[in-house]
Amino acid sequence: MSAGPGTPTRHPVGAGSLVTAVEARLHGFFATRKEIVEPLGPVFVDAARALQDFVLRGGKRTRPAFAWTGWLGAGRHPEDPEADAVLTACAALELVQACALIHDDIIDSSRTRRGFPTVHVDYEERHRDQHWAGDPDHYGTSVAILIGDLALAWADDMTREAGLEAGAHARFAPVWAAMRTEVLGGQLLDIHGESAGDETVEAALRINRYKTAAYTIERPLHMGAALAGADADLVAAYREFGTDIGIAFQLRDDLLGVFGDPAVTGKPSGDDLREGKRTVLIAEALQRADATNPEAAALIRRSLGTDVTPEQVTELRAVITDLGAVDAVEARITDLTDRALTALEASTATTEAKRQLRAMALAATARAY
Amino acid sequence: MSAGPGTPTRHPVGAGSLVTAVEARLHGFFATRKEIVEPLGPVFVDAARALQDFVLRGGKRTRPAFAWTGWLGAGRHPEDPEADAVLTACAALELVQACALIHDDIIDSSRTRRGFPTVHVDYEERHRDQHWAGDPDHYGTSVAILIGDLALAWADDMTREAGLEAGAHARFAPVWAAMRTEVLGGQLLDIHGESAGDETVEAALRINRYKTAAYTIERPLHMGAALAGADADLVAAYREFGTDIGIAFQLRDDLLGVFGDPAVTGKPSGDDLREGKRTVLIAEALQRADATNPEAAALIRRSLGTDVTPEQVTELRAVITDLGAVDAVEARITDLTDRALTALEASTATTEAKRQLRAMALAATARAY
Repeated sequence: MSAGPGTPTRHPVGAGSLVTAVEARLHGFFATRKEIVEPLGPVFVDAARALQDFVLRGGKRTRPAFAWTGWLGAGRHPEDPEADAVLTACAALELVQACALIHDDIIDSSRTRRGFPTVHVDYEERHRDQHWAGDPDHYGTSVAILIGDLALAWADDMTREAGLEAGAHARFAPVWAAMRTEVLGGQLLDIHGESAGDETVEAALRINRYKTAAYTIERPLHMGAALAGADADLVAAYREFGTDIGIAFQLRDDLLGVFGDPAVTGKPSGDDLREGKRTVLIAEALQRADATNPEAAALIRRSLGTDVTPEQVTELRAVITDLGAVDAVEARITDLTDRALTALEASTATTEAKRQLRAMALAATARAY
Repeated sequence: MSAGPGTPTRHPVGAGSLVTAVEARLHGFFATRKEIVEPLGPVFVDAARALQDFVLRGGKRTRPAFAWTGWLGAGRHPEDPEADAVLTACAALELVQACALIHDDIIDSSRTRRGFPTVHVDYEERHRDQHWAGDPDHYGTSVAILIGDLALAWADDMTREAGLEAGAHARFAPVWAAMRTEVLGGQLLDIHGESAGDETVEAALRINRYKTAAYTIERPLHMGAALAGADADLVAAYREFGTDIGIAFQLRDDLLGVFGDPAVTGKPSGDDLREGKRTVLIAEALQRADATNPEAAALIRRSLGTDVTPEQVTELRAVITDLGAVDAVEARITDLTDRALTALEASTATTEAKRQLRAMALAATARAY
């Protein structure tokens, strides 16, 4: 598993005012929950607060940005009477993401996120500090399962209460449904593949497709288009663009996970090797090594997921590069990006949206190490 | 924690044809998911199948029954053009329940449910059988978290796709929102109370209120009324009836958990003592023992949650009874049931719904051991 479903480490584009607007919507939504939460008393108020803090602590708001751009690109305008409801629905994607991250942190046994204890670790520590009965780890996991569930339920509530008109809601619903099912499916394939030891490029690409591309770019854009009532051609163009850029985005992140500068990625050098992530890059390397260099294959297999030293990271980088895996992944990124941009250019999206999406695509996929 | 949120062990009323109709709706809904699930491949198809099997394996369909009765009781009719959509929305409550049970089984470390391995145990066993990498327990928990999430997302999808007209959907949404938040809050209070050792009657009643009463009876009835466009008086009467009967229902279940005949409850005699459940019955017993009989208090505290023998169960039953805790709980059940039936009789619900709800109430709360 990665640090989270489809969460590459860089910001695809600066969009300060949209980030602020999305956070204001989330803040407003949390305020509306008080009426339901407070009657249950301070313990639940505190848990709801933990969720709010988690959601508002930061994040790039990538999914709302793609959804909103998708809506604008279908010819809508921020002054449109429906804009208010649409922005709220876009912001709700951050609550789906909160569920995904909180549950993913349990699954990955991650101890920190954004410099804070993960939710399950936070509650584990509260349990330990209070010397309560039972196992602190199990308590932390249990509470974090429920807080993640709350985020998922609230994501849904937020879209229902956004004020979408009936037609927009009806167009939105199947896209929202597909997006949530796909990201859960992608996460499931990821943990299954890691346990079952599926090392194929195909398996890694399928996980990228659903866990990152569909969830982070394709479906948010599709959601924006659906909310706008865009025609089938624009939907198809957005989806092709989103799938291709989404996969390329994750491939770039996979390269950064092995070759990235810690100053840029914010993670220790070679961190993906230490985590033993089964990326397309690693699958490419293993496939090539199995065919031509069994010693390199053995080295990669025995190093992955272990606490490799900086010297070992350097050696593994050289081996992976020499096998041609980096070039292969770079070629995939280039092909996917070209195809995505071609689909975008040929589409009926507005000129401004094309400019914006092109910039987001290039920022997300550009070589930066 | 109990065996599941608000799942007392007996069927409140026989409603065979409704059970069949609810299961047919669920079956139909699962069929519609194929289109989204199949592109992700056989591993995810299999997980979706595991969820379907879990949901369709049985269950009393209590929540859909209350919701449907609530709708009929507001003067609607099974031949009404909206009945089809309403029944589907009622059936979706079973998917919320699937999430609650799957996640609750992780939280309670339960190994079986309805005679089958729980979802996390099923996946733990698959992992072990295949000799996969990593920890089988952690794998089982991880997959079950995701399958529970899928159930929660699909519950929402099922209500959105039920075909409710816009007005009915708008009335339904806040009730659906409150119900999901309340049950998650109730579960959270339950695990918190158990860890923090909150032994008060008030805490146990609050957990009953939200984890069982609101989730199982009050909000389903409210949902039926909202879908029907019932007036505020009927909503208020349903909610009072539902809260009171729901709490009484759980109090009866608490008594059965200690005094019930295994042939009736399907659980070993005195099972709640062994599980260490913090019920109102136990809270009443401890409160009385602390005031009058410190030895009895010490005995209860050191026995709860341990593997008590049948002889110890007999002794504990006598102690709890002698303290007056059973009479106190019986008195609460009587008061709550009287109040609930008074509210129901005074309401504008149809005669047939009153008859039906009275029967459900009496079946749920009657002395049966």
